[in-house]
Amino acid sequence: MRLSRYFLPVLKETPSEAQIVSHRLMLRAGMIKQSAAGIYSWLPLGYKVLKRIEQIVHEEQIRAGHIPMLMPTLQPADLWKESGRYDAYGPEMLRIRDRHDRDMLYGPTNEEMITDIFRSHVGSYKDLPLTLYHIQWKFRDEVRPRFGVMRGREFLMKDGYNFDLTKEAALHAYNRHLVSYLRTYERMGLQAIPMRADSGPIGGDDTHEFLVLAETGESEVFYDSQITDLRFGDRAIDYDSVEECQAVLEEFTSRYARTDETHDAEVFAQIPVERQRVARGIEVGQIFYFGTKYSDAMGALVDDGQGGRVPVHMGSHGIGVSRLVGAIIEASHDDKGIIWPEGVTPFHVGIVNLKQGDAACDGACEDLYKAFTAKGLEPLYDDRSERAGAKFATMDLIGLPWRITVGPRGLGAGVVELTSRRTGESEELSLEAAVARVAEIYAPHM
Amino acid sequence: MRLSRYFLPVLKETPSEAQIVSHRLMLRAGMIKQSAAGIYSWLPLGYKVLKRIEQIVHEEQIRAGHIPMLMPTLQPADLWKESGRYDAYGPEMLRIRDRHDRDMLYGPTNEEMITDIFRSHVGSYKDLPLTLYHIQWKFRDEVRPRFGVMRGREFLMKDGYNFDLTKEAALHAYNRHLVSYLRTYERMGLQAIPMRADSGPIGGDDTHEFLVLAETGESEVFYDSQITDLRFGDRAIDYDSVEECQAVLEEFTSRYARTDETHDAEVFAQIPVERQRVARGIEVGQIFYFGTKYSDAMGALVDDGQGGRVPVHMGSHGIGVSRLVGAIIEASHDDKGIIWPEGVTPFHVGIVNLKQGDAACDGACEDLYKAFTAKGLEPLYDDRSERAGAKFATMDLIGLPWRITVGPRGLGAGVVELTSRRTGESEELSLEAAVARVAEIYAPHM
Repeated sequence: MRLSRYFLPVLKETPSEAQIVSHRLMLRAGMIKQSAAGIYSWLPLGYKVLKRIEQIVHEEQIRAGHIPMLMPTLQPADLWKESGRYDAYGPEMLRIRDRHDRDMLYGPTNEEMITDIFRSHVGSYKDLPLTLYHIQWKFRDEVRPRFGVMRGREFLMKDGYNFDLTKEAALHAYNRHLVSYLRTYERMGLQAIPMRADSGPIGGDDTHEFLVLAETGESEVFYDSQITDLRFGDRAIDYDSVEECQAVLEEFTSRYARTDETHDAEVFAQIPVERQRVARGIEVGQIFYFGTKYSDAMGALVDDGQGGRVPVHMGSHGIGVSRLVGAIIEASHDDKGIIWPEGVTPFHVGIVNLKQGDAACDGACEDLYKAFTAKGLEPLYDDRSERAGAKFATMDLIGLPWRITVGPRGLGAGVVELTSRRTGESEELSLEAAVARVAEIYAPHM
Repeated sequence: MRLSRYFLPVLKETPSEAQIVSHRLMLRAGMIKQSAAGIYSWLPLGYKVLKRIEQIVHEEQIRAGHIPMLMPTLQPADLWKESGRYDAYGPEMLRIRDRHDRDMLYGPTNEEMITDIFRSHVGSYKDLPLTLYHIQWKFRDEVRPRFGVMRGREFLMKDGYNFDLTKEAALHAYNRHLVSYLRTYERMGLQAIPMRADSGPIGGDDTHEFLVLAETGESEVFYDSQITDLRFGDRAIDYDSVEECQAVLEEFTSRYARTDETHDAEVFAQIPVERQRVARGIEVGQIFYFGTKYSDAMGALVDDGQGGRVPVHMGSHGIGVSRLVGAIIEASHDDKGIIWPEGVTPFHVGIVNLKQGDAACDGACEDLYKAFTAKGLEPLYDDRSERAGAKFATMDLIGLPWRITVGPRGLGAGVVELTSRRTGESEELSLEAAVARVAEIYAPHM
């Protein structure tokens, strides 16, 4: 993309309404615009990051054997009356009446609707196990929406639902989700720690939240410092293997890690003092096993293969897709702006032309642009007639992890400058070497 | 995907509530499930088609130089009060009141919101031309939703908005959209004819609807038969060229083609009788130029470079993404089921194992599965222990354009059978040749 043809409305001033750094930087970098309290338009740069995150979530869900579909945003109230949650949910549920005076709602979650789909079409153990998921906009009518997309009202979420014949099979689905989530967050450059949590209105006993450590996190968290040394990495995993998934669960959940809701000071005190950590975290996902809560209430029964009809065991598993955009910024920024991890950056590399209009500089930038595009990488080429300082400030603000600077002096010596946004370190390389180097950096992410 | 692990709830019975063939087939093929009148869940097979269509729309919009973003589903009523449409829109607008008693609505279209974004960030002719678009769920509270996803209430639509300094520039944007739409529909295997139309509540004088000819179309259309001989094909086009886009517009709109709203019997009568056609059509898109209607009302002014401040010229341009799924089926089916065009098929090829459990058959199917996957093609492998007739009926119903049948007799002779869903014709090929042949067929669509 050429910046002269893009829509990137960066702000020079820091918006006064934004209380946390991710909200400030998303507004300043022209990623979002508020249209109503807690409701945002995703401007082109923000939209690109949102799509990258969504794509990673899709890929990892499909890798785990989960099947994508899509449920609508609006739901009939009747389904929620069946489960008993219509009255229980409270004022955070946006209730709507249509032109025929039918009670509807903007879905905050989809346990009822997916259970209805399941009971309409599945009647036998032979069709199990089954995990369906979707990524769809949801709405929670927060009384005080704030922190930008971190606590918005209209938000994008992946929610998935497993259906299994037995509790044991459902717990394997739970473990499988935990493993897939570890992979998902690591691909985004995040360390998200599974912590034992409280189930809240979804119900159920088994639940873990995934928390990203950040000073601005809304939850206080308590953990054993050994947990931050764990990495899932790119190890091979057979998602059908009960043992392999169970082993990962144990590896990542056996050390103490809890939110304030489940914190137990006595147990925490047993950790060696030098490993005790108290910090703040941002919740970016949660997994639940809740057994037959919804299948009992809504009659989702299957033939068990032994002449019986039994309620199906379920769980639900969510990733906050739009919230992740803010969480990643909270975890990765500096005074100059955002620092995108390679896995989610909106453009792979920025090209800064120090002397727009100079034939050699323009030509070299065009060559770089074509070379990156040919390799499947997306460059953002700052082809505006601006001073170098302004171009660097924009690139630093929007946070592309790699920048190539093209100037007449370097070109005279046959080189351009490749700069890491994270470290600020630069190296001089030929055009070809610079393209090869960037392609090599992104190879694990393609 | 292996069918034994998929969620494909095909129905044996024809659902009584479905009045048109696309609705019947989408229900029977397990593509959708109604959750409320005019509101559907997209089951896995339907979701895949929806995503293929969405992807083609994205690719062609980006090719034309238009910039993707995303606006929210809910909008504040205030914006619509500014334009005067809040009161004018009528009961099809779903009006919502939030917990703080603020008036909101579920967006049926986005002229107001995009104009608000524009006026907040753009103030100079230097930032023009600009075309922004998004693909988002919208809502129209139809009094009698029917015909499945063809006239649903919650529907997915691409809507794009151009901003230009002059009427001339805005008309180029109009033409550019027309060209990009021709390409878009052809990639989906559709012939969509641009017809002069009525502008309705969007406003403006210049507007064309794109109609797909189908017996079940909701509009009566009148056209010169020469128009159905036109193809855009894969000709190169420079979207920045005013002349090239204008020439395509003239080529595709100079012959008579109108909906009943704009039909002129006298002009129609001047076409040679043997070329006069009266048929029915399904609207799958519409483009508008409406000048300064919204920029005047909402104060979207730019510095014109000559000391003046002028309202920006705009147009809006829509493609009915979810509706297209139904329209394609209306245009492409037979008594046995759907016939997907290669560009939008949910899976590229079906693999039918005639003797599940036979080592040679299972092995050959696995080899085919791996070979297709390695080529970036998605097979659907019917690995169930069903009779051949049931497997063929399912494949015919869900409409994959190519099927490979693997049986012991053929394997004995070293061949499998490749069958076209459209013609029913089969040929016997070695496994390698069958894979190569299917890959060749899809090469233009990859």
